[in-house]
Amino acid sequence: MQTESESMKQPPRAIILLSGGLDSATVLAMARDAGYACYALSVDYGQRHRAELDAAKGLANLLGAIEHRVAHLDLRVFGGSALTDNAIAVPESPTTGIPITYVPARNTLMLALALGYAEVVGAIDIFIGVNAVDYSGYPDCRPDFIEAFQTLARLATKVGVEGARLRIQAPIIGMSKAQIIQVGRALGVDYSMTVSCYQADTLGLACGRCDSCRLRAEGFADAGLADPTRYQHT
Amino acid sequence: MQTESESMKQPPRAIILLSGGLDSATVLAMARDAGYACYALSVDYGQRHRAELDAAKGLANLLGAIEHRVAHLDLRVFGGSALTDNAIAVPESPTTGIPITYVPARNTLMLALALGYAEVVGAIDIFIGVNAVDYSGYPDCRPDFIEAFQTLARLATKVGVEGARLRIQAPIIGMSKAQIIQVGRALGVDYSMTVSCYQADTLGLACGRCDSCRLRAEGFADAGLADPTRYQHT
Repeated sequence: MQTESESMKQPPRAIILLSGGLDSATVLAMARDAGYACYALSVDYGQRHRAELDAAKGLANLLGAIEHRVAHLDLRVFGGSALTDNAIAVPESPTTGIPITYVPARNTLMLALALGYAEVVGAIDIFIGVNAVDYSGYPDCRPDFIEAFQTLARLATKVGVEGARLRIQAPIIGMSKAQIIQVGRALGVDYSMTVSCYQADTLGLACGRCDSCRLRAEGFADAGLADPTRYQHT
Repeated sequence: MQTESESMKQPPRAIILLSGGLDSATVLAMARDAGYACYALSVDYGQRHRAELDAAKGLANLLGAIEHRVAHLDLRVFGGSALTDNAIAVPESPTTGIPITYVPARNTLMLALALGYAEVVGAIDIFIGVNAVDYSGYPDCRPDFIEAFQTLARLATKVGVEGARLRIQAPIIGMSKAQIIQVGRALGVDYSMTVSCYQADTLGLACGRCDSCRLRAEGFADAGLADPTRYQHT
């Protein structure tokens, strides 16, 4: 058995949902900077932009994650989104309302997977890189959603029932894209390694035209920094 | 476009989580009896008792589901349960507390998948066969958990944000196993087709010794009915 002083030396464990994009890479760097032992989780859900999974692997390594697991969950069984159904095109001009790139229940599923992983490795904190400012209008990126999931997590799990105060941490939820980039740059995130584009090619090169590319480019411009994104030559 | 009278003729759609066991088969029969067009969803999560997935297919057909989809989500990436980790044995005598057959975050994941499916097919109701009476002590089978998920569902989704009152229905949550069996029998459920055993063999034959087998056998005895379960000859 551990003595109290030994146990106090161990950093708390956290699960970090790591898509391979700019936001989640920044969140991983922030969690590590806050002293957590970081367990990174990516989800292969049949997404069109699969290069982000390769990016996640490199970022987990660069940013000091203890381990990186990839869960497989094929959301193409449902379709209904431009990101999981090849018959639906990714929009290349701004749209109003909730866009077709919304993947039904995606963040609920991601957090549920993180919750299972948290129980198995004994983590109390789960970090997710949702953002409610420069975002695409998805319902599952809002503070109300995060809070409701935290309530659920404490009721849903063995550790929660036993008294653990599970927390869903969304540290960039209120930041602008420019602020996120500035924080991450200061913590050593190499943004040339991140893939944000919804239709990145197999090398991870960005289209420069989709919603996600547009928000990202504006973020670098607003931050007054050169955009390190690797774009397709079209 | 549909006229109002045409649209009123269409039965409401519901997602039914169908494991292939006794409880969820009964719930499917109840939902259909209540007038729902039933979309059955099973989840292949790498469970030890894979025969239940074959059982689910037959039950969806028998009980009149409109369609049956199987989502693939390999929870063996986390392990931590006797149901997903072959290195952990299924207990064959009663245990206290939350048992090792508990799969971390399983019902949260199942409901999250059902939620995605609901959004895609336009269903407002999701049925789940959890039971808080003759159950195995899992935290994610309790009414508080179901209510918290319903709150989450309305915040998490495009349809919820647009005003749909998504409902998580758990119609057998307060029933004894004997009551469940009596309801299902009256609705035409053939329980010889259901697989409850945590370590059923590839033919779906039950061990007769695990927690799930014990609860099921007691249910038939309490209902005063012959037990149609197909047991292994050991």
